[in-house]
Amino acid sequence: MGRRLVLTTFGESHGKCVGAVLDGCPAGLKLEEGDIQGMLDQRRPGQSAISTQRAEGDKVEILSGVFRGSTTGAPIAMIIWNRDQRSTDYEELKTKLRPGHSDYPAMIKYKGHNDYRGGGRFSGRLTATLVMGGAIARKLLGAALDVQTHSYVSQIGKVAMGKRFTEKMIPDIYGNDVRCPDPEAAALMRAAILGARRDMDSLGGMIESVTTGLPVGLGEPVFGSLESDISSGVFSIPSVKGVEFGSGFAGSESTGDGAVQTRTNNAGGILGGISIGMPLTLRVAFKPASSIPREQPTGRHDPCVVPRAPPVVDSVVALVLADHALLGGFIGPVL
Amino acid sequence: MGRRLVLTTFGESHGKCVGAVLDGCPAGLKLEEGDIQGMLDQRRPGQSAISTQRAEGDKVEILSGVFRGSTTGAPIAMIIWNRDQRSTDYEELKTKLRPGHSDYPAMIKYKGHNDYRGGGRFSGRLTATLVMGGAIARKLLGAALDVQTHSYVSQIGKVAMGKRFTEKMIPDIYGNDVRCPDPEAAALMRAAILGARRDMDSLGGMIESVTTGLPVGLGEPVFGSLESDISSGVFSIPSVKGVEFGSGFAGSESTGDGAVQTRTNNAGGILGGISIGMPLTLRVAFKPASSIPREQPTGRHDPCVVPRAPPVVDSVVALVLADHALLGGFIGPVL
Amino acid sequence: MGRRLVLTTFGESHGKCVGAVLDGCPAGLKLEEGDIQGMLDQRRPGQSAISTQRAEGDKVEILSGVFRGSTTGAPIAMIIWNRDQRSTDYEELKTKLRPGHSDYPAMIKYKGHNDYRGGGRFSGRLTATLVMGGAIARKLLGAALDVQTHSYVSQIGKVAMGKRFTEKMIPDIYGNDVRCPDPEAAALMRAAILGARRDMDSLGGMIESVTTGLPVGLGEPVFGSLESDISSGVFSIPSVKGVEFGSGFAGSESTGDGAVQTRTNNAGGILGGISIGMPLTLRVAFKPASSIPREQPTGRHDPCVVPRAPPVVDSVVALVLADHALLGGFIGPVL
Amino acid sequence: MGRRLVLTTFGESHGKCVGAVLDGCPAGLKLEEGDIQGMLDQRRPGQSAISTQRAEGDKVEILSGVFRGSTTGAPIAMIIWNRDQRSTDYEELKTKLRPGHSDYPAMIKYKGHNDYRGGGRFSGRLTATLVMGGAIARKLLGAALDVQTHSYVSQIGKVAMGKRFTEKMIPDIYGNDVRCPDPEAAALMRAAILGARRDMDSLGGMIESVTTGLPVGLGEPVFGSLESDISSGVFSIPSVKGVEFGSGFAGSESTGDGAVQTRTNNAGGILGGISIGMPLTLRVAFKPASSIPREQPTGRHDPCVVPRAPPVVDSVVALVLADHALLGGFIGPVL
Repeated sequence: MGRRLVLTTFGESHGKCVGAVLDGCPAGLKLEEGDIQGMLDQRRPGQSAISTQRAEGDKVEILSGVFRGSTTGAPIAMIIWNRDQRSTDYEELKTKLRPGHSDYPAMIKYKGHNDYRGGGRFSGRLTATLVMGGAIARKLLGAALDVQTHSYVSQIGKVAMGKRFTEKMIPDIYGNDVRCPDPEAAALMRAAILGARRDMDSLGGMIESVTTGLPVGLGEPVFGSLESDISSGVFSIPSVKGVEFGSGFAGSESTGDGAVQTRTNNAGGILGGISIGMPLTLRVAFKPASSIPREQPTGRHDPCVVPRAPPVVDSVVALVLADHALLGGFIGPVL
Repeated sequence: MGRRLVLTTFGESHGKCVGAVLDGCPAGLKLEEGDIQGMLDQRRPGQSAISTQRAEGDKVEILSGVFRGSTTGAPIAMIIWNRDQRSTDYEELKTKLRPGHSDYPAMIKYKGHNDYRGGGRFSGRLTATLVMGGAIARKLLGAALDVQTHSYVSQIGKVAMGKRFTEKMIPDIYGNDVRCPDPEAAALMRAAILGARRDMDSLGGMIESVTTGLPVGLGEPVFGSLESDISSGVFSIPSVKGVEFGSGFAGSESTGDGAVQTRTNNAGGILGGISIGMPLTLRVAFKPASSIPREQPTGRHDPCVVPRAPPVVDSVVALVLADHALLGGFIGPVL
Repeated sequence: MGRRLVLTTFGESHGKCVGAVLDGCPAGLKLEEGDIQGMLDQRRPGQSAISTQRAEGDKVEILSGVFRGSTTGAPIAMIIWNRDQRSTDYEELKTKLRPGHSDYPAMIKYKGHNDYRGGGRFSGRLTATLVMGGAIARKLLGAALDVQTHSYVSQIGKVAMGKRFTEKMIPDIYGNDVRCPDPEAAALMRAAILGARRDMDSLGGMIESVTTGLPVGLGEPVFGSLESDISSGVFSIPSVKGVEFGSGFAGSESTGDGAVQTRTNNAGGILGGISIGMPLTLRVAFKPASSIPREQPTGRHDPCVVPRAPPVVDSVVALVLADHALLGGFIGPVL
Repeated sequence: MGRRLVLTTFGESHGKCVGAVLDGCPAGLKLEEGDIQGMLDQRRPGQSAISTQRAEGDKVEILSGVFRGSTTGAPIAMIIWNRDQRSTDYEELKTKLRPGHSDYPAMIKYKGHNDYRGGGRFSGRLTATLVMGGAIARKLLGAALDVQTHSYVSQIGKVAMGKRFTEKMIPDIYGNDVRCPDPEAAALMRAAILGARRDMDSLGGMIESVTTGLPVGLGEPVFGSLESDISSGVFSIPSVKGVEFGSGFAGSESTGDGAVQTRTNNAGGILGGISIGMPLTLRVAFKPASSIPREQPTGRHDPCVVPRAPPVVDSVVALVLADHALLGGFIGPVL
């Protein structure tokens, strides 16, 4: 993922570890494990009543590319060692394929050689590797360009956030375990998730992402458009089934009063694939998770993965924007 | 665009020509200009009352890579010479930027060096270059794997198609100038477009795409997922602001009864980024066009570009699927 | 070829045309066809007694990416239409494979679908497409960084240039049809080539390339080293069988007196894959051409391709250096 | 490095570890740490009187991508933890740059942020990461296609191997600590290295590589030629300054008797960038090492790195050939 800032990920849900290598980060960025850990903690399950019980305790370790507290320009390798992998839960998967799950095409594609334990390479746990890279990209964007990326839950199942998001609400995103900055909507969403857990069902939802501070001119026309690269990254997150920028699907119903369109930023901050200096906005649709603990009352899995997704969406957006900032010369090889 | 089957495009709306080079096509595919011309004609404007008056007469010429009626394995270069470019219409654009149009970021990014005539590199005319490559990819998929891709208009403005699409409706897609296989909806869509033209307004809409015949196992987990690559390609089409697979945004509201989910293919034919052997379905949202001829009663531009988009969406889908079929060894280097 | 400045080539020796698309050139570079034509003329055969009789008359046409005399930042497509393709000379090749020629593996690889006429995609004529891109890269390097690249013939068969190359000799490179700046050696080389033509034999030789004005810091450690990328490009020139930087093969015999080593630039201007601000020097070994006109007294082919190669080597070096100058931020997206 | 089989490396000489991620390896290849360890041991220093005293004890650990003794198709991450890093030896480097060493351009390029300890990212120690990937590629080529790659030392300083290499000599390559299969030459080379150590000097040399069993048709014309990709990889090895295929530089002096040329394989097994089914042969020139222990009688560094290079050259050749075997469909996604 990426052309100038390249993220390579590895690991399996129930293997030794999950990890990432970020290549192309400029030298001279102050970086320590805490910068990454903070963002990883935001996606960690086992934090609340509404999420899975598994205590991952993801503790990231930087293996290379940082020297005396700064990046060196060399590839930054990071790793989280796995613990508490109750693989036996999954042993039976080898023959009993789960409906709606990637087990099936993976089994066919790799002729049974895939590591099926816990979803293996397809597990939601792998989103931690996106966050490892994304945390660095996000810090880089802030330090070099004062670009800020924030995502939040705007819908769970049929419960949508009523208020319009404003910058003032940023501190409230992580004020509740649903990660919705509207406290009233958050309470309803929480109830919906607990209901789904009780019914052994699962729920989809929506994440919205807002980026401010972008200069004009990031992105390329046609194949290297910002929308192309962001959507490509977003669809690497498990369970994502839709992406829209600005007014998106709703905009497809509207007529085109151009003058208003730019003023209200229906284009989502991008025209012709290139940033226009307005906030970049997008929405990401998640389907309900497919591993439902119907027979397992203790429930290893989340009834709803969406509250864990904001830092993952932030990571993808930051990685793509940092890549384009480097490609376009907005950030140089040394800070 | 592409890793194994790589499309490079060039040209400007009001320059000498538009063209494309497709590299990586296997040798031995029967190919003639008519195969490409047929699909280009489907996106050609000036065909009906609802579309722009410009008579493009796009006539494609194959320059290389075909010998004695078959592809040779070498890059296939194709070109369409431009005619009838009333550039003077656009001369004033240099100072008078159009709202909601890529003129603005392009002017900043290239410091005024961009060819602004007719949108230049950002013009909808450039979608012809996607179709040049897509027509070959589509023929390749059909010849090698019997994979068929079809797109159609499912919504214009607020008028949505009522019927559910079935394979029987394929011949009806190009039966009307709206490219909607439901004749009743098509009549209403046509009226809406004519109304928008009269009001000097413009309309967005929706394209749906269905691909049948896909084997299990196309695509890669994580960064090379089918959704990632298709969405990346789709967002290289001007005016696209949203993409969803299977039940997409609607699915984000549903609960996750897995057993049903696979049966009804809410996943859109893809799980874990990999094809599952069911039809691949996606929907693409287009915003209203931004160049509205308020002061120009004769109207050079389409009030709605959506009816021209089905062959373009088909092209992107076919290019990505052919690329993955080559990557996965489903198609070899020689047919 | 290239990561930020990407060259795509197409065409066949005896097809309609040969062409190239250069993507990623910054906007604002003054460019006209004459800039490219001048360098193409330097590799044109039919110019002297020592070269092939075919009058190519390569006339390049720019198709896109240039507007009002400057590059726009969009892909620059260029084309040369083929004339005088006596394909019948080659018709018999289909069954009668030439020894030591790429006809054989191409026939196997493409199962007979390859365009074998005149070597098709493998013809030396395709080096014109490298020069199309290289002429632009060379102009860009000069305009943006005052970097100058010059190549010359240092050996033909067993005749080696005696003098050491200095900057003063640059104007003499194209002072004779052998392209050797040492007039005495050039005369001997010319005699050797005429002898080979008389004997219906062919000769190999050596090109040396010197680049001055490079800043410190171009290139990347390990996989993106300057040597890696230059050698990769140089081996895309037909008949090249060896590349060395600085003292190269001779240096492998020396002992390592480091202090002297840097002073005499045995490293060829590159350490750890990165430019050190000293002249970049390399040598390229060409094998004798494999299509020898033993039965054809009129001789369509060169007895020695080496005198035509300096602009091709210059092109490859310039393309790689310009790519790295863009990657490293030494040149921005607009001049 | 690579397009279908992609190697990413990380780590620094005196950091926590060095490591590699190999992405794109087919599923179903039997693989255990011993397969990689064996090849790593061949490049390990501290094994004999002629090499550095540092006891690296490189012990590789596979972190991902292998399940129940077979590859899964997922990225294979590997790591070697560093020990015995006497960093203090290098502390003074920060101000005192070594002549002829990458310290200088690295310091400029990264503005002093680079990890300079032990050469950091530029250290010869990083060649262990090439071997990690190369050992897997080599096993894959053997298992899937019965392709065998072998490299050996053919020259140290001015001492060249007298005998012509034959397949019978393969078992003798690692029969001495110089890695030259000609025992008489090996003895002279050993004496030369010990002499250089005594004189606190260093020596360059030559590696030859022979690959047998290649099918016809690996490689692509022009930019994806086998020579391009192999040379690109070879120049990522520190101290390499020249590469030639087949007769290479010597061939540039010969005349072109085509019939003989193919019989004696002067082309090195490649024509037009594509394998011809004959042995692939290349020679790699190493310059003398630049870190010479003039003031350090105990000598941490090798007076000659060439005897450690054969497994590294084998690795690069195997990685490129496996990549092309996958690209060309000679090896499928599952063994």
